[in-house]
Amino acid sequence: MAENKPDNVVFIGGKPFMNYITSVVMQFTTQNANEVIIKSRGKFMNRAIDVAEVTTKRFLDRQIEIKDIKTNSEEFKSQEGRNIRVSTLEITLKRK
Amino acid sequence: MAENKPDNVVFIGGKPFMNYITSVVMQFTTQNANEVIIKSRGKFMNRAIDVAEVTTKRFLDRQIEIKDIKTNSEEFKSQEGRNIRVSTLEITLKRK
Repeated sequence: MAENKPDNVVFIGGKPFMNYITSVVMQFTTQNANEVIIKSRGKFMNRAIDVAEVTTKRFLDRQIEIKDIKTNSEEFKSQEGRNIRVSTLEITLKRK
Repeated sequence: MAENKPDNVVFIGGKPFMNYITSVVMQFTTQNANEVIIKSRGKFMNRAIDVAEVTTKRFLDRQIEIKDIKTNSEEFKSQEGRNIRVSTLEITLKRK
């Protein structure tokens, strides 16, 4: 029997949009997850929001909802030694 | 004396990034706002998150913080009559 792991994370990148929708939906339907965390950074944060909106309002309407949205910043050095800052976004979805 | 209006809204679009930083910072400093709402949609949502992160962690570090983040979806018809969905993002900043 499938255990409910607390770490059901989907990282958003440059793959086709529907791949991410499928990942999130399957975590809830076939993996029986209670929560799924959608993680993203930089230019992919838009897509993470789209994934959260489409899964909560279309694919799993009335079954899941957004529990929490958090932003943060990460700093790192570029190859030229400059400090680069990038924003990160974590959206937690949960079963209603 | 300036009144604290509840509707201190900054809409994020395609202008230079620092314009939005300046708008948000000035709402708190010269306009004496207690809260500022950063609104955005579609591809500009990334930038809205960047504006929130940079103002709360750099320009007004220890003075303001993120109070709330909300996403939503808007539907409209394209010129060809197709239904288009776009995500929207509202970030509320508040004085600490």
